[in-house]
Amino acid sequence: MDIAEFRRRGREMVDFVADYYENIEKRPVFPDVEPGYLRSLIPSEAPVDPETYEDIMKDVERVIMPGAASPACTELETVMLDWLGKMLQLPECFLAGTDGQGGGVIQGTASEATLMSLLAARCKTVRRVQASNSQLLEGEIFSKMMAYTSEEAHSSVERAAQIAGVMIRKVPTDDTYAVRGEMLKKMVEMDKAAGLIPFYFCATLGTTPSCAFDHITELGPICNDENMWMHVDAAYAGSAFVCPEFRHLLNGIEKSFFLLVNRVKNRADLIGAFKVDPLYLKHENQESGLVIYKHWQIPLGRRFRSLKMWFVFRLYGHKGLQSHIRHHVTLAKEFESLVRADKRFEICAEVILGLVCFRLKGEDVLSENLLKKINQKREIHLVPCQLSGRFVLRFAVCSRTTESHHIQKAWQHITQLTFEVLQVSNY
Amino acid sequence: MDIAEFRRRGREMVDFVADYYENIEKRPVFPDVEPGYLRSLIPSEAPVDPETYEDIMKDVERVIMPGAASPACTELETVMLDWLGKMLQLPECFLAGTDGQGGGVIQGTASEATLMSLLAARCKTVRRVQASNSQLLEGEIFSKMMAYTSEEAHSSVERAAQIAGVMIRKVPTDDTYAVRGEMLKKMVEMDKAAGLIPFYFCATLGTTPSCAFDHITELGPICNDENMWMHVDAAYAGSAFVCPEFRHLLNGIEKSFFLLVNRVKNRADLIGAFKVDPLYLKHENQESGLVIYKHWQIPLGRRFRSLKMWFVFRLYGHKGLQSHIRHHVTLAKEFESLVRADKRFEICAEVILGLVCFRLKGEDVLSENLLKKINQKREIHLVPCQLSGRFVLRFAVCSRTTESHHIQKAWQHITQLTFEVLQVSNY
Repeated sequence: MDIAEFRRRGREMVDFVADYYENIEKRPVFPDVEPGYLRSLIPSEAPVDPETYEDIMKDVERVIMPGAASPACTELETVMLDWLGKMLQLPECFLAGTDGQGGGVIQGTASEATLMSLLAARCKTVRRVQASNSQLLEGEIFSKMMAYTSEEAHSSVERAAQIAGVMIRKVPTDDTYAVRGEMLKKMVEMDKAAGLIPFYFCATLGTTPSCAFDHITELGPICNDENMWMHVDAAYAGSAFVCPEFRHLLNGIEKSFFLLVNRVKNRADLIGAFKVDPLYLKHENQESGLVIYKHWQIPLGRRFRSLKMWFVFRLYGHKGLQSHIRHHVTLAKEFESLVRADKRFEICAEVILGLVCFRLKGEDVLSENLLKKINQKREIHLVPCQLSGRFVLRFAVCSRTTESHHIQKAWQHITQLTFEVLQVSNY
Repeated sequence: MDIAEFRRRGREMVDFVADYYENIEKRPVFPDVEPGYLRSLIPSEAPVDPETYEDIMKDVERVIMPGAASPACTELETVMLDWLGKMLQLPECFLAGTDGQGGGVIQGTASEATLMSLLAARCKTVRRVQASNSQLLEGEIFSKMMAYTSEEAHSSVERAAQIAGVMIRKVPTDDTYAVRGEMLKKMVEMDKAAGLIPFYFCATLGTTPSCAFDHITELGPICNDENMWMHVDAAYAGSAFVCPEFRHLLNGIEKSFFLLVNRVKNRADLIGAFKVDPLYLKHENQESGLVIYKHWQIPLGRRFRSLKMWFVFRLYGHKGLQSHIRHHVTLAKEFESLVRADKRFEICAEVILGLVCFRLKGEDVLSENLLKKINQKREIHLVPCQLSGRFVLRFAVCSRTTESHHIQKAWQHITQLTFEVLQVSNY
């Protein structure tokens, strides 16, 4: 959507909202639909090609308004996350379908998704341990429970463990910054020998520092053998799996319990961890077997974020989403080539998606000074990371409007500042 | 703002956004402001009288745009929550000010606010216990920790305890559905005698079922004596304290650590519970002593919700907010009089703010049938509760547009359906 169309559609939307308020008293205060009403009103998969804005707005009146905010909010979300699951070619067990045991949920943030999966795993483990030793108190079990994640994992994993009150260990990575099966296995065995209870592993597909991919085909079977819950954090890389050429990076997912973009294999595991049902939250359809998201998350309230997904999936189509991803990857590769052609720089990690990790060869201080200059100029903005103990710059392509000329301009700008940095350091 | 103005302002806002995108490349990618820049650009208190929309939009360009999303988002939030704190006449220790130790934060939901305070209290308690017995593991301490809340408290308090992995006890209430000091004291003493560690009490000002007010003037000193953190959940009633005639309901707040609407007395208690600082989240001003919200909440990301507060506070003014609250209370009292004048009904709890709890005298089944009929007709919508073991209907005034004629019409509707219910039950 270009800016002129945005203005037009935006004004239409303001009128849509105003008309709604103007006529709100003519509408019933409560919807008159049966649980599950929405699924049959829309296709079971995202469109391949883009649809028009008019078509979608017509469907808002036909599909959403009869179910108002609730249950339309829940039901559209369930179907949208099935659409997404199918685009990602997830195994059937992760879909809600009409009678599946899995399903997706939009968590407020990636941090909350990781926390939710950790809490569900904690609950499952406590029950399992108490089944064989009913004398043990919950807290005593907590003090022996050990979670694991990559040393390259996002900080939210460590925070989730702090919140849940369990220990967490960082698993070392190989020279591509990925966790391999044997590294996890070794740690788990040591901890078991010390009387601890390994129960959770958070794998990352697309780490924050360098977009590395943990080897989940190796890690999944180990987790299964050890009664551990494997959670897969694909908060960044997940959307790339709509392209078949990247889908192999997700192989092994069938062994995980929870995929962050955001999906669970067995709903009951989540619900079991949190169900509290006071009278003011009871309703007549609560035993319908349909998805009820209040047990899948920390807050009770929810935003209607699936409405945005519905618009995006239909305005882009599966093909449009693929070209969006491919465009970003192409731009990142373009930047990578520019870096590689300059002998003063080195690439620090394989460029798989939209992230390029690079640095000036030599002492860290050079790259640190370069970063300082770049961010002071405020033409582009970079966030650093550490890889193998060295200071690394991260060039991330993530804006919807980035084009080749931006990449070229950014590189020109960086090389100009590099000149200044190296000149000073030569004195 | 009426609907005609909403249309006009809405279109202007769409153009504002479109213009922003159209010119985004002319703007620096990173703001050039010093930490704390925003506080001096705006008044230190909310205006008494309403301001115009034009004035506010002018300030968006002057105050917000130079600080863009960040740090403007954080800094406006700190100041807006000070504005709110002053309107609520909170003790100085709850304000951020320029060098205070307290301050407010907008949590995603009330559930998250309660969870955050519970986690902070848990962390503080573990440190205290370990200081006198460094051998004890965290999990061993958890298994002895006891939280308390009213039997009338919101379900999110019980969930917070589940998530944090600590026990929770429901404190019985008096005949006004409020917790008194002696009831808590008795429980705490029993638990201490049994070797448990009481550490947290969640008081409620305005319970969900009946809008009851726990006696925090009695409860606060007990919590202080017992080294317990008192959290005050005023998620519903909190906004009423902008009116001096309701402010006395908040007396005793100086003894609490955390007030949900949403405020903490000592930031360090929160930050201590969660600080994880990877390189990609470090920045040069992180030791500035200013508010950094990422440690105050579960998610890392934040929405710019203080912008809405800024608009609301200024468009209404302190006086406008007061009339809004008073209008709702007046309407609830109007409904109460209608119920009291009808001998078939009884009022089940004192009407203090916008909630009226009532029921048909006699067997529960009558009120249950009435509720069923009301919600089937879909003209108005009521949510029930249980008080003293009896089924009770809750009439809540909460829409911005509710007027006296809605109350009259709703009561007419209810009495019509009551006629039908009682007719059937007479057969």
